[in-house]
Amino acid sequence: MSWLPTLKTNTPEEGYELAIKLSRMAVKLTQPDDEARARMRPDYANSADSLTSVSHVVATNFQTVAQANDFWR
Amino acid sequence: MSWLPTLKTNTPEEGYELAIKLSRMAVKLTQPDDEARARMRPDYANSADSLTSVSHVVATNFQTVAQANDFWR
Amino acid sequence: MSWLPTLKTNTPEEGYELAIKLSRMAVKLTQPDDEARARMRPDYANSADSLTSVSHVVATNFQTVAQANDFWR
Amino acid sequence: MSWLPTLKTNTPEEGYELAIKLSRMAVKLTQPDDEARARMRPDYANSADSLTSVSHVVATNFQTVAQANDFWR
Amino acid sequence: MSWLPTLKTNTPEEGYELAIKLSRMAVKLTQPDDEARARMRPDYANSADSLTSVSHVVATNFQTVAQANDFWR
Amino acid sequence: MSWLPTLKTNTPEEGYELAIKLSRMAVKLTQPDDEARARMRPDYANSADSLTSVSHVVATNFQTVAQANDFWR
Repeated sequence: MSWLPTLKTNTPEEGYELAIKLSRMAVKLTQPDDEARARMRPDYANSADSLTSVSHVVATNFQTVAQANDFWR
Repeated sequence: MSWLPTLKTNTPEEGYELAIKLSRMAVKLTQPDDEARARMRPDYANSADSLTSVSHVVATNFQTVAQANDFWR
Repeated sequence: MSWLPTLKTNTPEEGYELAIKLSRMAVKLTQPDDEARARMRPDYANSADSLTSVSHVVATNFQTVAQANDFWR
Repeated sequence: MSWLPTLKTNTPEEGYELAIKLSRMAVKLTQPDDEARARMRPDYANSADSLTSVSHVVATNFQTVAQANDFWR
Repeated sequence: MSWLPTLKTNTPEEGYELAIKLSRMAVKLTQPDDEARARMRPDYANSADSLTSVSHVVATNFQTVAQANDFWR
Repeated sequence: MSWLPTLKTNTPEEGYELAIKLSRMAVKLTQPDDEARARMRPDYANSADSLTSVSHVVATNFQTVAQANDFWR
């Protein structure tokens, strides 16, 4: 089963969750070692600037997902 | 009740507020600890570059919200 | 009266001014203390990289405003 | 006379020049002191990362200008 | 045979893989030395902020690929 | 002869090359001194984060070029 079968979601909230998944997947594919990623978590989870950067990636992906769902209009 | 039932807003100003909410939600979902986020507040609220980064995220989300509302035309 | 009654402007130049206003409003809403913002001004106004970042936010907002005005065609 | 009477240009190259102008104008409006801007020039003109950031802003503005001109098709 | 014969993919997941390929190609064309790139890998693969930046590039390219495939609707 | 006569290209790969050209041109126009740019090359060609930033600019320009070519559909 694909991790990304479709960009369609039932609601905007589910679309936002998909945007987060898309944002994390690039990280996972670049650094597949689960432990290495876990070790970095305190770094970004406690840095305001890191969290803002994460939010920017989510915003870019959410725009794509929202367009794919015709903004759930 | 969903925190994001729709991307539709009545006015551009409400759309801007929704863009801010979208920007903050990614931070909250990445760092769910309220106290940890509160502790970081002075870091970004007193740094010009941090505030500019926050504004960039809001700008990206506002573009999505504006498109969803056909720019309130 | 709303600070953002509409995304429509009469001219591209006014649209650019609105993009600057949109860029500043996120900063203001995140750091509402006027004095704190004034204190930071020398930081970014004298840093080439900070000014480039400001310009990037304006560019993103200007794209939204330009789309909202059908590029003033 | 407005510094931005229109987003229309005759050619893609003129559109690119307009994108540079748009990128610089936000800097100028944020730091209106000509001397202060001149003083910063060596900072970014000799930093690869600064130049890349400048190029990113131009790319965002060029996308807007290209859309406004229907990509000069 | 071109490394980029088309932006069309059969599925969103393949589209995401293409977005990663597009993101890496700019790096490869700027730094063609395979060993130099391999040497840098630990730098970004163990830095949360570097991985977030990588994810942002992928997000931008994924938006393009998704648009090219009409969001696989 | 213009360095940018058109945004049209025959193939996606040529479109990607044009995106790289667009990304470099802003750097060249901001720092026209060939030697100064050559001196900076080792800085960004050996920094993972610098290369990621370059790739982001290319991604933004590639989106514009792809739109201009109706995604080579």
